[in-house]
Amino acid sequence: MTHDPKVRPMVSDSPDGTVLTSMPGHTPVDRATAAARRVVDALLRTDRANANLDRVAEELDNIADHLEQHAPAVAERLVDMWHGEGVTRHDPVTGPENALAPPLVLSGRADGSVEGVVSLTIPYQGPPGHVHGGVSAQLLDHTLGVANAWSGRTGATAQLNVRYHRPTPLFVPLIVSGRMVSQDGRKVCSAGEIRTAEGDLCVSVDALFIDKPALRRR
Amino acid sequence: MTHDPKVRPMVSDSPDGTVLTSMPGHTPVDRATAAARRVVDALLRTDRANANLDRVAEELDNIADHLEQHAPAVAERLVDMWHGEGVTRHDPVTGPENALAPPLVLSGRADGSVEGVVSLTIPYQGPPGHVHGGVSAQLLDHTLGVANAWSGRTGATAQLNVRYHRPTPLFVPLIVSGRMVSQDGRKVCSAGEIRTAEGDLCVSVDALFIDKPALRRR
Repeated sequence: MTHDPKVRPMVSDSPDGTVLTSMPGHTPVDRATAAARRVVDALLRTDRANANLDRVAEELDNIADHLEQHAPAVAERLVDMWHGEGVTRHDPVTGPENALAPPLVLSGRADGSVEGVVSLTIPYQGPPGHVHGGVSAQLLDHTLGVANAWSGRTGATAQLNVRYHRPTPLFVPLIVSGRMVSQDGRKVCSAGEIRTAEGDLCVSVDALFIDKPALRRR
Repeated sequence: MTHDPKVRPMVSDSPDGTVLTSMPGHTPVDRATAAARRVVDALLRTDRANANLDRVAEELDNIADHLEQHAPAVAERLVDMWHGEGVTRHDPVTGPENALAPPLVLSGRADGSVEGVVSLTIPYQGPPGHVHGGVSAQLLDHTLGVANAWSGRTGATAQLNVRYHRPTPLFVPLIVSGRMVSQDGRKVCSAGEIRTAEGDLCVSVDALFIDKPALRRR
């Protein structure tokens, strides 16, 4: 069976373990974005007094100037970046081209769930040594959207209810998962969670999505 | 009345309009972080074929190497970054030293609410041309924490319930606000919202926090 690359894979026609997000690769843009993530992290850690940050600011501004000089108008880029993508390469959770994204890589399971493992560092910190509660909410919101697509549903979040069970640690592998739970007409209910590798439940979420019939998949 | 800089200002002893987050300044670290934000944004917009991204990747890796060579051990930095700060300079929502943060600047009002205005760009995109739902959740979670502190409460989020009323546009001023609503023992209820400058309600939130008695404020 061949897949139209513009159409997301679904559990009904794809094997267990199918990668559902864009894998970071070795293209120049992915390498530049990975390097930008290192800069973001290192800026929070470096010695404020002895790292010659005046010079670093100048160098980063020069790089930004260069990139902006080669950028099309924003309206044009916005159209272009949504063309030909079954999965996004630019979103702030899984996007290899977005330095805000850790990035999280999600795979689909035969039971209809999706799952990924991610370790978060200092830029994602809330309480000392722990993940910001809003970061957890963001990871889970996005994961549920991918879970819905894996079950053949699309559409926007209407409600997101997040429960914090224990502080979520930085620097260790976190297992982020989600699944569609039920559907009633256009209302799709989904649930997800973040656990440590030891199985400790840190954050859980349930959410309501309003399904858009996916006309292309009929 | 003089303030201990380690103690956050509170509505009971501070004027309307008191800035409650760290204002981005002209220090080298703040300028370097602002430049890093420009790089993150421009990487998503620049011409993938003609911006010499191999060279950009190399330059950014060199900057990251330099910053890391001047960084103390992570454990040491983690202790240091929480010393002497009444407000954080490094969190992923308001932190001037965190390139993930837009950053949002929040001020306290005499009525007990807090408010800030922010415009978001392509790194924060979810649906085409609109803010990622998880980004809105993150901004509101953090805003409620600041609102609670302005009302003299501290403590971690236990539940965060987000409602999405309409898509939140990129590139326009968004008004983010929050307030403590009620307290019952250690349970603190808070609410917030994101509106456009025209007053259209995009996202609302209510949340439950578990108060930690702030011993230093006795």
